[in-house]
Amino acid sequence: MERTFKATLQSFKELVHKIKYYNEALAVLFWDLRTGAPKKGIAGRAKVIGMLSTEAFRLSTSIEMEDFLNYFEQKESNEKLDKVYRAVVQECRKEFDRSKKIPAEMYTEYVILTSEAESVWEEAKNTNNFSMFSPYLEKIVDYNCRFIELWGYEGNKYNTLLDYYEPGMTVDKLDRIFEQLRERIVPLVQQIKNLRYQPDDSMFFRNYFAPAKQEEFSLAILDKMGYSFDAGRLDESEHPFTIGMTPGDIRITTHYYPHNFSSALFSSIHEGGHALYEQNISCELDDTPLSTGTSMGIHESQSRFWENIIGRSYNFWSCYYEDLQKIFPEEFMGVSLEEFHKAINKVEPSLIRVEADEVTYNLHVMIRYEIEKALINKEVQVAALPRIWNEKMKEYLGVEPKDEKEGVLQDVHWSGGSFGYFPSYTLGNIYSAQIYNTIRKQFDDFDELIKAGELIKIKEWLGQNIHKHGKLLTPAEILKSVTGEEINPSYLIDYLENKYKKIYNLNI
Amino acid sequence: MERTFKATLQSFKELVHKIKYYNEALAVLFWDLRTGAPKKGIAGRAKVIGMLSTEAFRLSTSIEMEDFLNYFEQKESNEKLDKVYRAVVQECRKEFDRSKKIPAEMYTEYVILTSEAESVWEEAKNTNNFSMFSPYLEKIVDYNCRFIELWGYEGNKYNTLLDYYEPGMTVDKLDRIFEQLRERIVPLVQQIKNLRYQPDDSMFFRNYFAPAKQEEFSLAILDKMGYSFDAGRLDESEHPFTIGMTPGDIRITTHYYPHNFSSALFSSIHEGGHALYEQNISCELDDTPLSTGTSMGIHESQSRFWENIIGRSYNFWSCYYEDLQKIFPEEFMGVSLEEFHKAINKVEPSLIRVEADEVTYNLHVMIRYEIEKALINKEVQVAALPRIWNEKMKEYLGVEPKDEKEGVLQDVHWSGGSFGYFPSYTLGNIYSAQIYNTIRKQFDDFDELIKAGELIKIKEWLGQNIHKHGKLLTPAEILKSVTGEEINPSYLIDYLENKYKKIYNLNI
Repeated sequence: MERTFKATLQSFKELVHKIKYYNEALAVLFWDLRTGAPKKGIAGRAKVIGMLSTEAFRLSTSIEMEDFLNYFEQKESNEKLDKVYRAVVQECRKEFDRSKKIPAEMYTEYVILTSEAESVWEEAKNTNNFSMFSPYLEKIVDYNCRFIELWGYEGNKYNTLLDYYEPGMTVDKLDRIFEQLRERIVPLVQQIKNLRYQPDDSMFFRNYFAPAKQEEFSLAILDKMGYSFDAGRLDESEHPFTIGMTPGDIRITTHYYPHNFSSALFSSIHEGGHALYEQNISCELDDTPLSTGTSMGIHESQSRFWENIIGRSYNFWSCYYEDLQKIFPEEFMGVSLEEFHKAINKVEPSLIRVEADEVTYNLHVMIRYEIEKALINKEVQVAALPRIWNEKMKEYLGVEPKDEKEGVLQDVHWSGGSFGYFPSYTLGNIYSAQIYNTIRKQFDDFDELIKAGELIKIKEWLGQNIHKHGKLLTPAEILKSVTGEEINPSYLIDYLENKYKKIYNLNI
Repeated sequence: MERTFKATLQSFKELVHKIKYYNEALAVLFWDLRTGAPKKGIAGRAKVIGMLSTEAFRLSTSIEMEDFLNYFEQKESNEKLDKVYRAVVQECRKEFDRSKKIPAEMYTEYVILTSEAESVWEEAKNTNNFSMFSPYLEKIVDYNCRFIELWGYEGNKYNTLLDYYEPGMTVDKLDRIFEQLRERIVPLVQQIKNLRYQPDDSMFFRNYFAPAKQEEFSLAILDKMGYSFDAGRLDESEHPFTIGMTPGDIRITTHYYPHNFSSALFSSIHEGGHALYEQNISCELDDTPLSTGTSMGIHESQSRFWENIIGRSYNFWSCYYEDLQKIFPEEFMGVSLEEFHKAINKVEPSLIRVEADEVTYNLHVMIRYEIEKALINKEVQVAALPRIWNEKMKEYLGVEPKDEKEGVLQDVHWSGGSFGYFPSYTLGNIYSAQIYNTIRKQFDDFDELIKAGELIKIKEWLGQNIHKHGKLLTPAEILKSVTGEEINPSYLIDYLENKYKKIYNLNI
């Protein structure tokens, strides 16, 4: 028996590694396609990607996999596994069930539908024509409802979708969270909007910021954050992203706009936050599906922590603004540190989520959450979305899209069927503020640390308390072990109120 | 029966494509490793490469493959295949037999031996110690002799190794070829060596040539040659190479030395020649093992044609030297076109093959050919190689290595077991001169074409006559169809004598 267990475990490990290696190869191909693969090779490369993905999927859902899972889920053999492989079995089971519960034919139909829908969405957005996209969206919603029936659900049907991106998250919890955000953020935005004073950020758009210099500064900041260039690299792509092969190779990208200073810098810091997470996952988890972030929300907490809480803080720039001015002496001539800090924190209710500031961002997410939840529970019709969208924008942000392009059609997510994903952005913001509250107490003088540019100490603390665990702990376990608390949005709200009270001289 | 044929062909095509896709993914991973993959990811990536290679090998040697080959080799089904798939069957059979005739265990031992031998060779070279490497070389030679017995051979045992890189090449043919080269090239070298006049190329080493400017000029020349940047890219790596994924994605690399002007430029042109070959293979051959060069020799003929015959010609530089001077005005101040042309064609018997000029290069190859042939036929002992090497260097080139590092240990090839590969370099040079002789007759005034920089016309001619065929024709068929002749080294010798007679004012 002992011998069988060992041999079986060895074979199971080989299967797990093989799936991981396929995914690693796919990640390299994906990165390559987006950072400079010659365009005439793209159509051919798609076939390679299709073949490798199919192989990985086939292994994850094979009879061999099922036999391993059945064996290692038995009490006797399960108890003999170490904690890593016990979690690997759970993770593989999750993936196996998710894939196997949907009939292959149905899944193929859905893949074809969403890939068509993405092109249709693009055209609908460009021609400002929601009615062109709505029949596709109706079908996508319908498929998702049928998937939920097959996967099963507890409580609200939308819970199943939420759980995929944020294990353990439910509509009940999220409703309470967004309720709290709405209560205090909507008035905060209103108060700021009504002020006569607004920070001036025109120098970010008026001047020419040479891409090579932007890159130089981004590289310097990433280095200060402790991003390892021996285990990663920074390239340019159309949209910024982070992609992880192994902790020894976690790459990030940005996009330099010569007439928009802050875009590349803050996206570099944002992606750097994601990358630090994956660079510092314990090597215990190498070659397993646990060597990644535990959830989209925790991942986003890391990127937002670095981008907003550190990267847009006064203390951070009191350390680095001089360096920036050395690189762009003319562009920032006559701009004081105070003015610069206010400019990077300008709050302005706007129509487009991806351009939104720290304060209004979560209201954009809330609109999407409310709509998705209603769609999946069949409480609204797809046809009504443009009207509902605009009403909610008006109610929460006080602005109204002039057309569907800058309204309901702005995001790609729904065309790909990514329902349940949007809330991760807000969860990330909430987690980041809770983590911030904890980390401040761990250092004698956190503010002095940031002023002194000792970011490595922050990185190390995050590494020890969050990053190293990879997917071995659930998001809730991570949060509990770090902060001693459940998810609690009041830390985010307090952080925002305190920060913007100072910037805007508010009376809260 | 018809239905069975169609269905079987469809399944066979799927298998062939799958193998090709694995190789395409491997090519991207290989390129990535050599152009900037983060160093901490390398060890992990090796496991991915190992897994994908094993999968591709498994498919190429599978029972499924064997069944397909047996079926499509039957007269009745073979006749129904189109010419492409008839050749695909032949190619797959070749690969299948080559792999299957060696017992798996023996092959594994050999892979381990050669991978150890490469490290040992590196240390032996660094410490100038052939006796450290010789036990490994003895074993590698021994394995190759045993492989030849298993693969079978006709005439000389070395023929089997030659045939792998250059289908159809034999010791009989090569002996005659090298005999002709020796007869006329050795005296030519001697004559040049004895001259008091030697071109001055010190400006290539004395000045600083900024890598960014070198790159700018390399890119411009590649563009003039017709290298498509929509189907490729130029990057930097330790050693220059060309790597092909599909004709839509053929990438090249070079290495910029700030104090060696000609290295990066001529290696870019050289690799550009290889790349033009693969970019212009017919799409009929897409996703098959025929979508590549037909042999190492024909491949090398393309790179050498562009590097030497075009790239080191007076006419070429009479078109582009002004452009070069614009990029490096100070570096080439006071250097006339005539002086520049002589400098890039300086002949100097030297010790290191990879740094050798056009005239002496083939003598370096001849030495290796003679030694390899003797080793495989057990006519010399490995222990005697340092002495034999030095004797041959003295005899053919008139120079003698002061140590083993710049003698018998200089090349990596033998440590990896690549016997039979070196002659490809000289075959490439010979083919290139034969092709040159033909192409001159195809245009009204070839010299004027080059002077006018109309390189695209050359590229198109090569595309139509050589490139498009990929591996559908054998090297001998290609040569015959292009030149109407068999391999004939006298064109190369005539070309060299004519060219260097002018440069050195010789009386030949």
